[in-house]
Parts: sequence; C-alpha cells; structure tokens
Amino acid sequence: MANNIYIVGMGPGSEEMMTGEALHALEQSDVIIGYTVYLDLLGSRFKGKELMSTPMRQEEKRCRMCFEEAEKGKKVSLVCSGDAGIYGMASLMYEIGKEYKDIELSVIPGVTAANSGAALLGAPLNHDFCVISLSDLLTPWDKIEKRLQAAAEGDFAIVLYNPSSHKRKDYLMRACDILLGSMEKERACGYVENIGREHTKVAACTLEELRNREVNMFTTVFIGNSGSEIINGKLITKRGYQIERNSDICRDN
Amino acid sequence: MANNIYIVGMGPGSEEMMTGEALHALEQSDVIIGYTVYLDLLGSRFKGKELMSTPMRQEEKRCRMCFEEAEKGKKVSLVCSGDAGIYGMASLMYEIGKEYKDIELSVIPGVTAANSGAALLGAPLNHDFCVISLSDLLTPWDKIEKRLQAAAEGDFAIVLYNPSSHKRKDYLMRACDILLGSMEKERACGYVENIGREHTKVAACTLEELRNREVNMFTTVFIGNSGSEIINGKLITKRGYQIERNSDICRDN
Repeated sequence: MANNIYIVGMGPGSEEMMTGEALHALEQSDVIIGYTVYLDLLGSRFKGKELMSTPMRQEEKRCRMCFEEAEKGKKVSLVCSGDAGIYGMASLMYEIGKEYKDIELSVIPGVTAANSGAALLGAPLNHDFCVISLSDLLTPWDKIEKRLQAAAEGDFAIVLYNPSSHKRKDYLMRACDILLGSMEKERACGYVENIGREHTKVAACTLEELRNREVNMFTTVFIGNSGSEIINGKLITKRGYQIERNSDICRDN
Repeated sequence: MANNIYIVGMGPGSEEMMTGEALHALEQSDVIIGYTVYLDLLGSRFKGKELMSTPMRQEEKRCRMCFEEAEKGKKVSLVCSGDAGIYGMASLMYEIGKEYKDIELSVIPGVTAANSGAALLGAPLNHDFCVISLSDLLTPWDKIEKRLQAAAEGDFAIVLYNPSSHKRKDYLMRACDILLGSMEKERACGYVENIGREHTKVAACTLEELRNREVNMFTTVFIGNSGSEIINGKLITKRGYQIERNSDICRDN
C-alpha cells in the first residue's frame, strides 16, 4: 500500500480538544513534524516519537521533510493548530504532493478557532458566516478589503483570523473602519485570545469598541450580523428560529 | 455552583471524530438530550444514560426539556451533529436561557461539516471562505440569494449546508444559477455525502456539473474560489503560499 502522510488538525491546543481520529493518527506515526510551538503543545505521550521541525518561515521545507520521511517508509504526521485545512498546510501539501505520486495524503480535520472561539463567546456563528484572514503576507490588502466589504454587504457574521502581528498592529482598526462604513457602531462583536491554552481571554463589545482594542496574533475576532445580540455577556447570532417550524436546518451542521 | 448544561457538538457522526472534551461532557451527564438520529449515533457506552428526545419539529421543546432536567439537579448534555454553534441549537439555548437565570450553559465545539467535508475533498477551504445554508425555513430566499451574490463578489470559497430537502429539490440548481451569473462554468467544486457515516460519497466536479447533480439533506457542497484547482481528484484552494515568506498565517487556524 502507498505510504501515507496524515495532515492533522490539533485543534486550539489542549489534547482534550483533539479528536480521537487525530490522536490515533499521531499514535500510529513514527515521525511527527510541525512548527515547534505546536510540537510543544503535544502531550507527553508523544514525546517518544521522532519530532521534527523547521523555523517558522520555512513551511515549504517542512512539507518536503514530510514527503522525504514518508519515502523512507516511515509513517508521518504533519501537525497544524486548529484545522490543517483552514489557513493551514493542507493545500501546500497537495501542491507539493504532485511531485511525490506514490505518497497518499489524508487530512484529519480539527476544531478551528472559528468554532472553538465561537463556543467561548456563546453562539456568534449560528447563522451564515464568513472567515477572513487579515494577514496580507499571502493576500494583497485590497483583496482583503474587498472581502470585508462583500461580507458586510451580505450581512454575514464574520470571523477574523490573524487580526494583528508585530508588523501589522493597526490591521484590525483598518478592518473595523471598513466595516463601520456600512455597519452601525453598536454592532455586537467579540474576541477570544489564547483559545484552549493558558491565559484565555474572552470579551464581547461593540464594533466601535473593537476598533480600539489591542489584539495580538493569538486573537480571533467575531463580528455579529445585523441580528446578533449580546445576551448576559455572550455574543449570540440567532438562527432565525421559528417555533415548531424547523425541519432540517439542524442537520449536517 | 449553578447547574450546568453542556451543548455538545458531536462532529459528523463517528465517535472517533468527537473531541475528548465532548466525550467527557457526555460521560459526566445524567441525561443526554437530542434529536433521535443523533442519539442513535452515540456509542454503546452512553446507552446507560437517560436519553431523551422530541420529534424533529419541536426543537424549542427539546431545549426547554434540557432546562427542566437541569432544574431537577441533573447534569444535562444537549447533543447536535457537527458543531452546536453552527446552524445548531446553541443560540436557541441562550435565548431560552434568559428565563433560567440559575442555569449555566457551556458550548463544547465540534468538527462541523465544513471542516470534515473539506478534509475528505482535499483542501477547498484553505483560504477565506463563506458558509451559507440553502434552507429557507428560517431565512427568506432573497436573503440567501443576496449572500450567494456577496460571496461570489468577494471571491470567497463557499460551503453550502442544507443544499436540498424533500420540499426543496431544486435549491442547489437555483444557487448554482446565481453563482454562474458571475463565475465561470469550469469553477472547481465538490460535494460530500454522509460524512463520517456509512455510504460516504466524495466527488469533485465543475460548477456547471454541480448544477445538475442530485444531492440530499446529508450533502455538503463546496465551491472553490477563482484560484481553486482539482489536483488528482482533490479540490484544492491555494493559501497563496509564497516560498519562505510566511510568518504568521498558519497560527490560530
């Protein structure tokens, strides 16, 4: 059978928030490859495994490392925080995989920050929503602006990944200013820091307040739709529930 | 301490795809409440618990049942497939919770069909994306159309939940016709049926082909963005990776 690489979503960080499937993939692996921060999050039960990494800016090398180890006949897992298919390494692995025809890739889904952050805030994504990264390292800023405008246009709830970094301190402010062009200042919003890790911080606020909040690269930001409300400190987006009328909206969610 | 209700995302179905946190919440519960289809998906280890349900169209009753059992001092879990905060019962629980001040709600996130379906298709959501339900039971169809247009406008990858039901056989076709108004016929798409259950079906196709495919209420549909490609049968949305340039886009995903 072809050698296999598991591309594993670890969830937000704590082992508790990994799926059984993800844990089994890691247990079955000879080598676990990932950014050091994620390897450090792994429970001691995996310390016996061969752990390999590359510095932060060398993700393509990290992917190639996976294929090279798999070609030696080793079982390999590549770990990513959250879900490897959401801003993670999954698509890069498939692109590089064109050069390694004999190696089969399997993505093991995980709980991404949109879901884990939403759970801590209440239910901000309980209706149609958009996920947008504010990092312009891989996307031109004008495309990010266009997506923010389209998301507001469609009255989606919005999740913002990578709202800030050392070099991009004011990006959340810039995004809020774009949204404030068409949304009311009181729009219900919230944000979560260090989900599933130490020093988790959860806050609900208005869009105007959000504009001036300090966030970092470990913050995930939520902007409600026009019907969202803050109920007892929780950010709630109604599913437009009508009593005794629902027939299939709760399926396959 | 206040009585607590866990609102638990079960993931797509198999216990393997639940998080440890979700399993622990169910193990700690005296009563597990949910739609019968979801209760049936629970492993035999939970058959000893008190299992309660209501018919499909009585979701508000099901929520009230949770609060009534919790008020008797029982530990209660409400289960939803996927993630209870994505088209699930979480927001309805918080709304009804206004009447039950002494009861604390905790949402336990799960792997939603966007993530689990994406993993089976390859990496269709590896850049900014929108999630839209085609069910018009709780949302007027013109709002759904507006969101489809906005999603196309923003060049988002798109996930469609509830693409069809007995009463809405042609909704996916109607959605595709809206998207074909601004997208090329060859746009890379895909869909997944019965994720994490028996008879799982995974297919990649063009938008024009998707328009004429038979789907059901257990199908989740994916539409790529303008850069998405089908690589060896997998639907891949590039994260716009630039060699050795990435610094933070893989964090908090």
